[in-house]
Amino acid sequence: MTRPVLHDYWRSSASYRVRIALNLLGIDYQATTVNLLTGAHRAAENLAVNPQGLVPTLEIDGQALTQSLAIIEYLHETNQPASTLMPADAAGRHRVRALSHAIAMEIHPICNLSVANHVAEITGGGDEAKAAWMRTFIGKGLTGLERMLDDPRTGRFCHGDTPTLADLCLVPQMYNARRWGVDLAAMPKLVAIDAACTEMEAFAAAHPDRIGPPA
Amino acid sequence: MTRPVLHDYWRSSASYRVRIALNLLGIDYQATTVNLLTGAHRAAENLAVNPQGLVPTLEIDGQALTQSLAIIEYLHETNQPASTLMPADAAGRHRVRALSHAIAMEIHPICNLSVANHVAEITGGGDEAKAAWMRTFIGKGLTGLERMLDDPRTGRFCHGDTPTLADLCLVPQMYNARRWGVDLAAMPKLVAIDAACTEMEAFAAAHPDRIGPPA
Repeated sequence: MTRPVLHDYWRSSASYRVRIALNLLGIDYQATTVNLLTGAHRAAENLAVNPQGLVPTLEIDGQALTQSLAIIEYLHETNQPASTLMPADAAGRHRVRALSHAIAMEIHPICNLSVANHVAEITGGGDEAKAAWMRTFIGKGLTGLERMLDDPRTGRFCHGDTPTLADLCLVPQMYNARRWGVDLAAMPKLVAIDAACTEMEAFAAAHPDRIGPPA
Repeated sequence: MTRPVLHDYWRSSASYRVRIALNLLGIDYQATTVNLLTGAHRAAENLAVNPQGLVPTLEIDGQALTQSLAIIEYLHETNQPASTLMPADAAGRHRVRALSHAIAMEIHPICNLSVANHVAEITGGGDEAKAAWMRTFIGKGLTGLERMLDDPRTGRFCHGDTPTLADLCLVPQMYNARRWGVDLAAMPKLVAIDAACTEMEAFAAAHPDRIGPPA
């Protein structure tokens, strides 16, 4: 089998999610950097594998797969029965997807750097406007998520005691929340789950600081 | 079996997706309105079923399910083998999810009315700033989606010749694009698929104009 290739960027939350999944599943892969700061995502080379001009893309099984959550569901489905990234029951899968989407749909897209840069531009407010935007929408989204976790099915991780897709979404979002100075004092469940994840090498090895910026 | 209850709002894209799914699957349901204009989504009654304070919520099988895409995947999984909302193969499911997420994660959250209202507020640009924001991000997102559909697996619908989750995401987004005056001239594939969907009664019956604003 050809070794999978991940088109990656160290600080992309979406890339970070896929790195954790590959590590948890023990899939050996090769990473290639798409430098978002130099616009490499909009270049022909990236558009050829990712028509939206985004990261990540995972080349695997003769296909170029895009969209991080869709990639992770694919990796789960094609690594049965080993993968436990999704629960075995329909109600559990619904809950894990709902938690994942509460992050990946309700927070992350609004707080994408390209959106925040657009806000800084149209307000003329520069970095301060950008940071205020981030704190507003990350804070609001995480507040709703903390309420969703007030559920007997929450365990050491978002759903039970093994990591699922929801935790793969949470950890990069918490990294971003801290980076932008979001106040996490009212979110003890999120903080505890993030800490439990961080103890696992599969999560730690995927952290942006372990990957580092492009040379 | 208790009749499912959909907590709905006529113009919510997320609600609209779920209405189409229920219609396509022939699931008889009762709708109850959550009036976003009067803030009913943030009231205790809605928070009790939807901790994020959003719509839609689907009460079904003794549970209150949130997050539209997670609800639709649940309906698909619990209506086997009748439901064809997701393809039968892992690669096909990946593609349908990637297309769905290109809309539901890359476009819809940024163009949510609460985000656009916040933009109008911080720019002081009022309705014009809001409309410009909508056209910028809907236009950019649909351009990427049109490129993703340049794929032999695209058929009469986004993936093949039967509607899938991707079409349930596309149709409400096209309704919004037209509402905000997005130029669709360079998106012939999206326009054709939207038209094919509109011909089906399951889609037509879910249209906001057929539901109408709260009394």
